[in-house]
Amino acid sequence: MRIVIVGGVAAGMSAASRAQRHNPRAEVVVFERGEVVSYGACGLPYVLGGQVKGFDDLIARTPKQLRARGIGVRLRHDVTGVDAKARTVTVTDRATGRSAAEPYDRLLIATGVSPVRPDWARTPLKGVHVLRDIPDGQALDASLQGARRACIVGGGYIGLELAEALRRRGLSVVLLEQAPEVAGRMLDRPLQQQVRAEVERGGVDVRCGVTVQGLTGQGRVSGVQTDHGQVRADVVVVAVGVRPNVELARAAGARLGRTGAVAVNLRQETSVAGVYAAGDNAEALHRVTRRRVHIPLGLTANRMGRVAGVNMAGGEARFPGVVGTGIFKTFDLGVARTGLTQTEAEALGTKAVSVDVQSTDYAGYHEAARPIHVRLTGERGTGRLLGAQLLAQNHESVKRVDVVAALLHTRGTVQQLFEADLAYAPPFSGVWDVLLVAADRLGRAL
Amino acid sequence: MRIVIVGGVAAGMSAASRAQRHNPRAEVVVFERGEVVSYGACGLPYVLGGQVKGFDDLIARTPKQLRARGIGVRLRHDVTGVDAKARTVTVTDRATGRSAAEPYDRLLIATGVSPVRPDWARTPLKGVHVLRDIPDGQALDASLQGARRACIVGGGYIGLELAEALRRRGLSVVLLEQAPEVAGRMLDRPLQQQVRAEVERGGVDVRCGVTVQGLTGQGRVSGVQTDHGQVRADVVVVAVGVRPNVELARAAGARLGRTGAVAVNLRQETSVAGVYAAGDNAEALHRVTRRRVHIPLGLTANRMGRVAGVNMAGGEARFPGVVGTGIFKTFDLGVARTGLTQTEAEALGTKAVSVDVQSTDYAGYHEAARPIHVRLTGERGTGRLLGAQLLAQNHESVKRVDVVAALLHTRGTVQQLFEADLAYAPPFSGVWDVLLVAADRLGRAL
Repeated sequence: MRIVIVGGVAAGMSAASRAQRHNPRAEVVVFERGEVVSYGACGLPYVLGGQVKGFDDLIARTPKQLRARGIGVRLRHDVTGVDAKARTVTVTDRATGRSAAEPYDRLLIATGVSPVRPDWARTPLKGVHVLRDIPDGQALDASLQGARRACIVGGGYIGLELAEALRRRGLSVVLLEQAPEVAGRMLDRPLQQQVRAEVERGGVDVRCGVTVQGLTGQGRVSGVQTDHGQVRADVVVVAVGVRPNVELARAAGARLGRTGAVAVNLRQETSVAGVYAAGDNAEALHRVTRRRVHIPLGLTANRMGRVAGVNMAGGEARFPGVVGTGIFKTFDLGVARTGLTQTEAEALGTKAVSVDVQSTDYAGYHEAARPIHVRLTGERGTGRLLGAQLLAQNHESVKRVDVVAALLHTRGTVQQLFEADLAYAPPFSGVWDVLLVAADRLGRAL
Repeated sequence: MRIVIVGGVAAGMSAASRAQRHNPRAEVVVFERGEVVSYGACGLPYVLGGQVKGFDDLIARTPKQLRARGIGVRLRHDVTGVDAKARTVTVTDRATGRSAAEPYDRLLIATGVSPVRPDWARTPLKGVHVLRDIPDGQALDASLQGARRACIVGGGYIGLELAEALRRRGLSVVLLEQAPEVAGRMLDRPLQQQVRAEVERGGVDVRCGVTVQGLTGQGRVSGVQTDHGQVRADVVVVAVGVRPNVELARAAGARLGRTGAVAVNLRQETSVAGVYAAGDNAEALHRVTRRRVHIPLGLTANRMGRVAGVNMAGGEARFPGVVGTGIFKTFDLGVARTGLTQTEAEALGTKAVSVDVQSTDYAGYHEAARPIHVRLTGERGTGRLLGAQLLAQNHESVKRVDVVAALLHTRGTVQQLFEADLAYAPPFSGVWDVLLVAADRLGRAL
């Protein structure tokens, strides 16, 4: 049994470990086009901001360690073609340029996503960056040396994390967002505004409703041209989204879903026999909506990889689905969401009701208490929980989004949340945790 | 309709507010033997430690504010008798000593608990304290002025919270515990040891397995006599537990439960028609064991009070039960538990299995990450979640116990916890939150 895995980051490495553990006699080979496998890409902004010592700290396991565990790793190898009938892939060694056919019994496509680069960002100018992998991070880090003015294009969570990191590095930062507000895909409008206010308090010049038209500079970038004038910048980071890398899946003949990512069943099988997909390039079942979604995130990728690994090795595992949980921190603000926002629920035709509670995370009289905002959303008629959005100045306090995420997983109700025996002591919450207060109000509003 | 409530703290005031809101035409009268109503007793150690400015900050509502909302409050009034047939209570005005019969249609007994005072603690010596209400806190606060050596008797959560508070005040602190370890009723043994180690790191001289025999001193306490020698102390705090105040319920003819607290049904009704009990003096349904327990805590008391208030006012509400959640902080350690410990589960004859995971709360490479320990307990055969115990150096990280508490409420399984879509970003958790890691391991161990 030969298991071939294309892509050696979250999903790919989880699959490799799991397959090898499930069937130690299987030959497991990982082809990775980059220089590094098994690293935490989510940590890149924190290396740049100085809260993680170095890029190497993001690496969980080296190829040597992986080989010692019986997992073959070939770095700098591009997989450029699949013959699903013959069960071979075409692999090109980037060092030598030589290609060869490699056989497989089971193939996992874990090719992830690539940052979207608009036309204006396809430039030979230096100082223009995306941030996806460690080499991207190293290039941006080098570019920041001596730089003074940064322009971040894109107000999603990566742009917002980077805004903090670059301010920590002492740069002046302008953040441009085409939409009317930042964090637009994560939160409802009133919460978006609070995120923007926090980023502005952090000293970032946030400009929403602005479209980039081009870059200026000679050799190195010197500015960003927009429909609202020029922004001076000696570093530009493009963080306008990602798209799934589906070329290989398509070459294999695998069906793509409506989201544009690879369609898979709960065993992570594509439409082609023997070919699996997992990670950021694949769709996932959303347990709240029962639809297929493309929400590329670290835990999801790891979980899909495990499922694929077990199944490829002859076992039986199923991906349990996601509920749309997301979390990030920017400056002193924690931001989290799970399930559906009011906007998302309405777009799906759900009879959704949301309530907002502004309170403190700890007992109001405790000196460590800081503001927390919970927006809780439920379904009229059924009383079902639909989602939650949280903002908190003690950033880690938004991790309590997990309580709602866990209940969403089991199709829980607002009443069940309200009745939960949550932990109370003054340095942890109010007597009635803000989630309980929100559930109480939502229960009466439904 | 006249609703009489005995006791004006958590349960009593929740009931009063709820009854008044549910039936604005009802006459709601609260008799409180003390000087203050509607305060957060859980905050007392934090006033003493300086993290809350003053005792007044613990007061949520004054009698004046309550009267403005239509709730009559009579301070310094003892309720000493009940005639459940005539539906009257005997009320003594402590200022004048005069007694009178007060009629009621519905009576709530919310008399709470009293600190246990062993024989040796019944002393005229100054400097010997318990900590239950604001006057207790004020007396202890005054006693700490100029004091140098404190001895805390009792290593439960109040003793452990106080140990931190008194160290913050600059006192040398000896903590005596009769049991072999501190936090004995909350945690399994290995976690108890970690709590003791933290308290010792905080500079407290912790002595377990020590029994107090008496106090020494003239006028003011000067020492504590134990079976392991003498402890010098100019302040002694007795924190060896609480007992429910059931005298009034007994006088009313209400049945007590096996725990010694007042037996109530889910509507908070006692065995006597028209007489309700709620709060620390009442038993609660434990949803995991289906037994009646006596776990006096703030949220439970508030929740029972709401339920009683609605029902007394003619509505219909049911207490949803507890799952045994508890949380506290001592020095830099957060401590939380929910459900059953391994010890508790075994004592009930449950086929329990526990796993321990020691990891970091945030991504291991992030500078803010600190150790976290999760012990997760499940039932062999059924796969049901039974409980969790958490310790963390970022104290607020143990608040994620709420995820397990919420699942216990719905009789969730270890598998459901493992499948939950919990939030991940490096300043919040590892890719696999430590709860997921624990659920994964426990699932394989079951």
